[in-house]
Amino acid sequence: MKLDENLSPLQFAGDALWLLDQRALPAEERWLRLERYEEVAAAIRDLTVRGAPAIGCAAAYAIALGARQLARGEAIAMTSVYSELAATRPTAVNLFWALERMRGAVQGPDALLAEARAIQAEDIRACRALGALGAPLLPDGGILTHCNAGALATGGYGTALGVIRAAHGRGRKLHVFADETRPVLQGARLTAFELLRSGIDVTLICDGMAAHLMARGEIRSVIVGADRIAANGDVANKIGTYGVAIAAAAHGLPFFVAAPWSTVDLATPDGTAIPIEERSADEVTDHGGRRLAPVGVKVRNPAFDVTPNRYVSAIVTERGIARASFDASLRAMA
Amino acid sequence: MKLDENLSPLQFAGDALWLLDQRALPAEERWLRLERYEEVAAAIRDLTVRGAPAIGCAAAYAIALGARQLARGEAIAMTSVYSELAATRPTAVNLFWALERMRGAVQGPDALLAEARAIQAEDIRACRALGALGAPLLPDGGILTHCNAGALATGGYGTALGVIRAAHGRGRKLHVFADETRPVLQGARLTAFELLRSGIDVTLICDGMAAHLMARGEIRSVIVGADRIAANGDVANKIGTYGVAIAAAAHGLPFFVAAPWSTVDLATPDGTAIPIEERSADEVTDHGGRRLAPVGVKVRNPAFDVTPNRYVSAIVTERGIARASFDASLRAMA
Repeated sequence: MKLDENLSPLQFAGDALWLLDQRALPAEERWLRLERYEEVAAAIRDLTVRGAPAIGCAAAYAIALGARQLARGEAIAMTSVYSELAATRPTAVNLFWALERMRGAVQGPDALLAEARAIQAEDIRACRALGALGAPLLPDGGILTHCNAGALATGGYGTALGVIRAAHGRGRKLHVFADETRPVLQGARLTAFELLRSGIDVTLICDGMAAHLMARGEIRSVIVGADRIAANGDVANKIGTYGVAIAAAAHGLPFFVAAPWSTVDLATPDGTAIPIEERSADEVTDHGGRRLAPVGVKVRNPAFDVTPNRYVSAIVTERGIARASFDASLRAMA
Repeated sequence: MKLDENLSPLQFAGDALWLLDQRALPAEERWLRLERYEEVAAAIRDLTVRGAPAIGCAAAYAIALGARQLARGEAIAMTSVYSELAATRPTAVNLFWALERMRGAVQGPDALLAEARAIQAEDIRACRALGALGAPLLPDGGILTHCNAGALATGGYGTALGVIRAAHGRGRKLHVFADETRPVLQGARLTAFELLRSGIDVTLICDGMAAHLMARGEIRSVIVGADRIAANGDVANKIGTYGVAIAAAAHGLPFFVAAPWSTVDLATPDGTAIPIEERSADEVTDHGGRRLAPVGVKVRNPAFDVTPNRYVSAIVTERGIARASFDASLRAMA
């Protein structure tokens, strides 16, 4: 398996879901062939596949794989397949959105596989559409992104990086600063990888350097993805996003959020209602497989934070661009 | 050699300067015995010894070692000894302060060694004094610190951690959050180490987590050290400090700076005049000795940033506590 023109990190082929192992990037482009839903659930939990829209696509394919296992006579219940997948990660709403959509489709292995394929194809179309809508918003020059909201985080093409990709395709001169995004380094490993691959100018920085580069005028705007957008426009995204948003506001810089509509959760009134996943301490204490922090130190590892709507300049979706007040603006697109 | 009651990272004994190798902490407490000024200069450059006041102490001892080399008949010029040390690192003003002081002392190996010992002893006294002055400022509860402004960054005892140490000694209930402080991880490796060693409650976080914990009320104040404080109260400190200061302001939290008077540089009018060291890319691309970022990615690695005085609640020195307007407040202590 190889990366296609959308740099899609998941491809269904033959009887299996192929996942690009994002833990191994950028050192190695290793594809894993998964035939069982349990393997996909494990891949979501251990970050082999990550990024809210990509998690949604993977979960949809997992349902299709579960239906095939059932059709082959395995003693499994589809309710357990759904509930095991729903328990993999709590914050990204695309997971629950995709599971609901699969639940509403015609049941049976072929129909469910078709639905999963449709979910991925629509996600790629949504990314391309929101990319085209968002591109004119970006000022020229330095633009900061945090984590990886790229092709690798979606069905393909990317959300925040989709907007950058679209702007780049229109000949705009952007210099992307990629926050490395501790602890899992999605920026250093994935954003840097896919932007280099796409020939887009990218400079890697540590998370603590962004405010300094804003003060010096080297960063002129910010664009990030989202794991869940509440009805009022509060945005849950990778830990560190909130600090970036505060810094952008302090420098008068626009802060854009790009996400497919499947990330918008109108059933969640505001950010306080979004569950924040706490991950294991070794993600923080270990670096490149070596423990560098002293034994015995306590650790906190929240994987996401919530950026209040007042810091958000615009939310770019394939249905249009939402602006404050987001309650009305988002509801109008529903 | 062992850590003393001040956790001093440098000790002159016999004919040599002993330095605790801070690159090896916390895995190993390795002491290096240095007899030559060139070895000390290299140790400053490669971060074996780091932290503005500790760099000043090390440079002073290096001058004394150079004078001994000259007295032994080596063909060196003291002007070169001074200039080589002055070229090691550009941002911390304590380095230049210590060199100036050594230049003003009686020349000759014994007098210079006595002066270097005096500089270290005074630095420890300054830390203890500013710790006692600053302790009452800290609210109970969660307190964030960035980088390592502890015993290991000074002659001993510490500046920001000296204030925390003094408050802890008075029975105050503080929970320290230590930013890991990428790229060199002085927080994860050094602050966590020395607070654990001193029995002070410490929780390690990634730099991008601080704003989130402020929003949740878990962090109630911030205290950091400084590498250079300009006449107007602008503060150069480890990269990432500025973002922390902005986040603290956004949450209405006090942001304290603790430093000995030797860090105050009244000859520098404001932060724009402070040179910012840019260090090598591998500090950013490598983790635990492994390169994790893709080959070919550009990297920025500014080692310091400048926090404008409007974000600083108070500057705690052994001469007293400066508050806005800092120009007048600092000048009054000179």
